[in-house]
Amino acid sequence: MSSFRLGLVGAGKIVRDQHLAAIQATPGLELVAVADPHAGLEGVPGHASLEAMLAAEPELDAVAICTPAHLRHALARQALEAGKAVLLEKPPGATLAEVEDLKALAEQRDLVLFAAWHSRFAPAIEPAREWLRERRISAIEITWHEDVRVWHPGQAWLWEAGGMGVFDPGINALSIVTRLVDQSFFLKQARLEVPENCQTPIAAQLQLRDGGGVPLEADFDFRHEDPPCWNMTLTTDQGRLELSGGGCRMSVDGDVVLDETEREYPGLYAHFQALLATGRRDVDVVPLRHVADAMMLGHRQATTAFHDASGA
Amino acid sequence: MSSFRLGLVGAGKIVRDQHLAAIQATPGLELVAVADPHAGLEGVPGHASLEAMLAAEPELDAVAICTPAHLRHALARQALEAGKAVLLEKPPGATLAEVEDLKALAEQRDLVLFAAWHSRFAPAIEPAREWLRERRISAIEITWHEDVRVWHPGQAWLWEAGGMGVFDPGINALSIVTRLVDQSFFLKQARLEVPENCQTPIAAQLQLRDGGGVPLEADFDFRHEDPPCWNMTLTTDQGRLELSGGGCRMSVDGDVVLDETEREYPGLYAHFQALLATGRRDVDVVPLRHVADAMMLGHRQATTAFHDASGA
Repeated sequence: MSSFRLGLVGAGKIVRDQHLAAIQATPGLELVAVADPHAGLEGVPGHASLEAMLAAEPELDAVAICTPAHLRHALARQALEAGKAVLLEKPPGATLAEVEDLKALAEQRDLVLFAAWHSRFAPAIEPAREWLRERRISAIEITWHEDVRVWHPGQAWLWEAGGMGVFDPGINALSIVTRLVDQSFFLKQARLEVPENCQTPIAAQLQLRDGGGVPLEADFDFRHEDPPCWNMTLTTDQGRLELSGGGCRMSVDGDVVLDETEREYPGLYAHFQALLATGRRDVDVVPLRHVADAMMLGHRQATTAFHDASGA
Repeated sequence: MSSFRLGLVGAGKIVRDQHLAAIQATPGLELVAVADPHAGLEGVPGHASLEAMLAAEPELDAVAICTPAHLRHALARQALEAGKAVLLEKPPGATLAEVEDLKALAEQRDLVLFAAWHSRFAPAIEPAREWLRERRISAIEITWHEDVRVWHPGQAWLWEAGGMGVFDPGINALSIVTRLVDQSFFLKQARLEVPENCQTPIAAQLQLRDGGGVPLEADFDFRHEDPPCWNMTLTTDQGRLELSGGGCRMSVDGDVVLDETEREYPGLYAHFQALLATGRRDVDVVPLRHVADAMMLGHRQATTAFHDASGA
């Protein structure tokens, strides 16, 4: 198996919680450096910037960009221009224009680019996709409820313009459903509940339809007491599929057919290694486009102010 | 010159004000029918629906879709599936997903599709593009101010979710500037002023940058007393270009070099005829994508309620 030298950009919570162990567990990937002006990772050579890392490690094959979303475009451009393959944490940019630009640049230079949607690597996703292949879907319902205070304590940026609010987890559900089904869905209507002291929705209800009228309804809510409910139901002409636990469990007509522990990031990095080995790209902008469409088309409704008890 | 048989879908104000005369003035286009359940056009055979028009006029080559934006996608799909070329009034869909779907379908079937941005056919646009070709832009400023009561009397849909508000004229400016320059611009920040009784902005200030940091600032405002101010200034290393009157006048360093009357729709239909004659497509989603990015990233600020004096 080919082996690739990887550098991380960003050494924040998601890197320490997920990326580090997943990279170390992936055959064919070697973590050689990290760039972050404010933090380091034990045992990994650190640099103050991507520029410094690229200068110090000219043999790097790939760079994983795990900074806040609004910084990713300039960093990814810099890495691509240096001839490196790039992995982008979700969402792949702060705007659609940024993602389309990176996609065009990677195509033009024939470089690997991976817009990573981690939820697509939950254990039930590929089996569910396989199960759906021979069936005709008549309705899809998504319920994505979690307690923002438990899952995003102190993440004040979520509530600022561009922070996405409940679409930060909701886009995970959209990334799953757009992987499961082949047809396109179109947003018809959306209701966005925005706390009166925030810029972004705390809850959103989306109504989409495919070209033939099949309904997809998504209900995202941050005001849900633990445990979270990350479920979707796909009704077909031959049975009803349920994914729960964010894609860890799969049931058909009420019978559990798969129940595994979460291991999204190892799957994500195995996929990145395979892209590197074959020189392919995987850049799907559709989940982010649905969010942009919902923010453009959605009806906003002011709701009770939100105050994070963590004081952040 | 090849001649093409055209059907109109929608017989509303924009069709009567602009499309009808422009089609009649375009060599190589013949208006043979119109479909609208509520209105007709004098001297043009009318049908209650696109379906009825397609059945009655099997020899139609092309269909121009001029209905409200949220109806365009289903109608355009129907026309493309019947093998017809399609022209879409601006904006080309209610969502980005719709436009991307039509683009993919037209490519797949190798059919002509034209997402028409009428402001790109203002008389100074191509001369300005030519003038800019050899120059290096250092800054772009757009001022697009008009009195909504004068230019959109009674258009209550503008203020509803999806109605776009001040982006309805603002997208015209974005369609011009994205035609004038070759580089991509990325939205960094936006401020949206939304009347407290409306869903969409009455004013918006956008800050974009290109990959090299060149600033593009756009100021859209619906609260401007007549006459309107539809101007943009492009500062370059060799002089300053000003477009005013929505692209009817062009000045270089203060000297007027072009001043012509508005004739956007004749140019738009001449371009459609050329697309039909050569079997090409022209589907640029970028102006709509900038609006979606602004709605996703923009900071909203409530402002004074808006009441249309026309009582609509």
